[in-house]
Amino acid sequence: MVPDLVQDAVDLGELVGLFGGELIGDPKTAVLGIASLEEAGPQQLSFITQRRYRARLLECRAAAVLIQRELVDLLPPGTRGLWVTADPYLLFARVAQFFAARARPAPTPGVHPSALVDASAQIDPSASVGPAAVIGARVCIGANVTIGAHSVVGEGVTIGAGSCLYPRVTIYPDCALGARTVLHSGVVVGADGFGYARDGFEWVKIPQTGRVVIGDDVEIGANTTIDRGALGDTVIGAGVKMDNQVQIGHNVRVGAHTAIAGCAGVAGSATIGARCMIGGAAMILGHLELADDVSISVGTVISHSIQKPGLYTGFFPSAENAAWEKNAVVVRHLDTLRDRVRALERQLRKGQGST
Amino acid sequence: MVPDLVQDAVDLGELVGLFGGELIGDPKTAVLGIASLEEAGPQQLSFITQRRYRARLLECRAAAVLIQRELVDLLPPGTRGLWVTADPYLLFARVAQFFAARARPAPTPGVHPSALVDASAQIDPSASVGPAAVIGARVCIGANVTIGAHSVVGEGVTIGAGSCLYPRVTIYPDCALGARTVLHSGVVVGADGFGYARDGFEWVKIPQTGRVVIGDDVEIGANTTIDRGALGDTVIGAGVKMDNQVQIGHNVRVGAHTAIAGCAGVAGSATIGARCMIGGAAMILGHLELADDVSISVGTVISHSIQKPGLYTGFFPSAENAAWEKNAVVVRHLDTLRDRVRALERQLRKGQGST
Amino acid sequence: MVPDLVQDAVDLGELVGLFGGELIGDPKTAVLGIASLEEAGPQQLSFITQRRYRARLLECRAAAVLIQRELVDLLPPGTRGLWVTADPYLLFARVAQFFAARARPAPTPGVHPSALVDASAQIDPSASVGPAAVIGARVCIGANVTIGAHSVVGEGVTIGAGSCLYPRVTIYPDCALGARTVLHSGVVVGADGFGYARDGFEWVKIPQTGRVVIGDDVEIGANTTIDRGALGDTVIGAGVKMDNQVQIGHNVRVGAHTAIAGCAGVAGSATIGARCMIGGAAMILGHLELADDVSISVGTVISHSIQKPGLYTGFFPSAENAAWEKNAVVVRHLDTLRDRVRALERQLRKGQGST
Repeated sequence: MVPDLVQDAVDLGELVGLFGGELIGDPKTAVLGIASLEEAGPQQLSFITQRRYRARLLECRAAAVLIQRELVDLLPPGTRGLWVTADPYLLFARVAQFFAARARPAPTPGVHPSALVDASAQIDPSASVGPAAVIGARVCIGANVTIGAHSVVGEGVTIGAGSCLYPRVTIYPDCALGARTVLHSGVVVGADGFGYARDGFEWVKIPQTGRVVIGDDVEIGANTTIDRGALGDTVIGAGVKMDNQVQIGHNVRVGAHTAIAGCAGVAGSATIGARCMIGGAAMILGHLELADDVSISVGTVISHSIQKPGLYTGFFPSAENAAWEKNAVVVRHLDTLRDRVRALERQLRKGQGST
Repeated sequence: MVPDLVQDAVDLGELVGLFGGELIGDPKTAVLGIASLEEAGPQQLSFITQRRYRARLLECRAAAVLIQRELVDLLPPGTRGLWVTADPYLLFARVAQFFAARARPAPTPGVHPSALVDASAQIDPSASVGPAAVIGARVCIGANVTIGAHSVVGEGVTIGAGSCLYPRVTIYPDCALGARTVLHSGVVVGADGFGYARDGFEWVKIPQTGRVVIGDDVEIGANTTIDRGALGDTVIGAGVKMDNQVQIGHNVRVGAHTAIAGCAGVAGSATIGARCMIGGAAMILGHLELADDVSISVGTVISHSIQKPGLYTGFFPSAENAAWEKNAVVVRHLDTLRDRVRALERQLRKGQGST
Repeated sequence: MVPDLVQDAVDLGELVGLFGGELIGDPKTAVLGIASLEEAGPQQLSFITQRRYRARLLECRAAAVLIQRELVDLLPPGTRGLWVTADPYLLFARVAQFFAARARPAPTPGVHPSALVDASAQIDPSASVGPAAVIGARVCIGANVTIGAHSVVGEGVTIGAGSCLYPRVTIYPDCALGARTVLHSGVVVGADGFGYARDGFEWVKIPQTGRVVIGDDVEIGANTTIDRGALGDTVIGAGVKMDNQVQIGHNVRVGAHTAIAGCAGVAGSATIGARCMIGGAAMILGHLELADDVSISVGTVISHSIQKPGLYTGFFPSAENAAWEKNAVVVRHLDTLRDRVRALERQLRKGQGST
């Protein structure tokens, strides 16, 4: 675990006042952070989300445990501090954010002397531009933005207030990021989409002249790539969360609050609805439409549009290799197997007819 | 859309003279660019490739529309400017390139003062080396090459004329890039291939002493990785186009004009023919050979060599999760199902025999 | 091939003394390196691992060939130099390392003037910090470490002796790397894991406060990403080897000497045993456990824990597209097909009963 910085404790009662819920226990308990049931010490909070962790709960040394009312009976009354709330996991997220913000020193505002900033760029004085960052012409950077070391922000890019680019992010020219966006290291926003016309055997490049437009509160994982549009824009809705190594093709539209897990890919001109959940390594083909509230399982190829909300799956179930090999042989001739079943059915019908 | 820079318009007739085809309309029309049927304004061109976009064509405000002769009947004669050509999509690509080149200011030749260039490197005076780029010993950079900010070019690398490295590209030592290659941000060329010998449980590294050799007119998408050869070289043929996040193993050979879509992977020592098309997230196993003109569908694992041109596919068709689960259960015992069908067939044959 | 630097030859007998095995031939032969059977010249060694390469062996011009005793009969006695050893491939690895170390000049110790090193960082004087590298507060860098150009090492990171970060690597704060680790260009260690709680439609970020802890002798391929833990740590065991573009989620544990091929992904909180082999583009779901000595084939999704060592596979076998389409149609209704077989079986049983 990260060594705790020395910092002032917070009264538990003060926290409950801030975030709501009911405290069973001493509001004067001093709290320094939040940890798992196993790891929490007497100056930390913890949380429980499922009944089956009862044993851990009983042994937990935390100052208090975030818990939903339905689970309070897991403990003899009065045993320990409890913070009762409708959704302990959500409360955990908020309390953890509270402590993380205190632990993390705010980046120093201002431009590092080694950064290379074009004279025409507008950078809010509260923003922080890190070592060797490159900021192009006509870039506009909002209040409290952090640009990490070695990030490269192309000309004409706008970055909304409170956004954070970790080190080594590239934004190609003319893209637009909303407020409170977070881009992790290695992200590339606005590279050319994969578009060519054929001239005999040769590929003739179609200039990719659109942009990437990213909404507010979007987080994008390490080494994820989002291509600029060919003619129009690639658009990522507000509140979208993408994991690492996701690939988004040109002119894709991703609806608000959709989450996309690691290694997933969305091919050009696909439209993903709002509140969708795309599993790891899932692949959405180009020009498709996915309705709102569609979920796709890990490793699934989606080759048709989906109008109906729900969970869709398509991966080959794994097995011991020998078993898989036997089954795979049959898969290669399933068509024939079905025909044989049909033939049997016909034969039996005839047989019955003749009986 | 990217805000248009102020620039001189071009006469439509001049363009037709440049690129060929037949103009139906006023050659004196001033044109500033090209856009989609929906978005084109009266000083822009547009293009139509399929009959089903007729409604958009009728409403299109473009100065003229690139169209094939077979579609001219979609419009009443004399309605609007038409630029008749055999392949409107290809012409669109060329005309768009024409305008993109005008819109994009050529990078200033010369080495940025913050770049770190080894004294033994040879850089053509027309080349542009961006901020904080690192150019190693004995590097040779041709005419009109652009090296983006923060790119790192290892010792002994050669880069052919007219090539462009976007910001944050790494070329490991001794690799060779042809003319007019384009490498997008985050590309890594020449990292070590994945090669180890076993010594009991330990992996003993096999030094990767080959190079990556990339032909002319190759474009490589963001965060794609191409490993150097173990003993010989990894070779990417002329005109190859790779999308983002492609992975090419050591000693792979990719034939000329092959296109590889995003997230695809080619394992070590595989040989891909010319003019192949590899779909997104497809995986080609090591040491295989794919003939020329082979296409692989999205998400397909290729585990055997392919001698015959054509399209090959292998992904599990997706379905609603409940349906998939039912089918997946059967897949796990397909071998048995086939045996049951066989038993039925035998039984019926016997039955008939006995009748 | 990389042009050989001029260097002193080594006596073959000296090499055999160093690495063991039996020499059949002249120990005074001068040797400059090692190459494949086809490419080796008279001052190079080569190696043969399989009987089927006999023709190449007969034509090989190498000074001597590494060979196992069982294959010596491939040659007429006394034909050429042979270096007999139990495992020629392993010996090849060691001899190649020997020559690679000689060919590669050791990086100059010291901090490049353009590097940005926090005053509180401790850097061993034998370490080499490359151009424009950024070293944060309280970083601790061991003996003979190489930090490549443009790498960014976050505050509080420790890097063990003999490690090498190639150019453009990011280590987020507080992560710990063992001795002799090798991280290739574009690697991101310690970015936030993908963890959110839901609040209605919105995702509320769970601060990722754990670390990444990497053991000794780990090698990590280009553009691979390893996320930091949410509350606890992500742990990569000693001797683990990862290829390019691998994705490791938060709180994953990978056992010692496990190898993970390119484009594979391991979702959050999964535990992979020791000495496992994970194939390219394989996906391991979150919270699973894989025992020691489990191997996973390319493109396989693992959705259940695996207790038993062995090879597990699950990808759809590829075929010509038309054949695949026919089979895929049946896959979509396999459940029904099985029911039809059941019906036939019932019918026949009844038929027999009635007969």
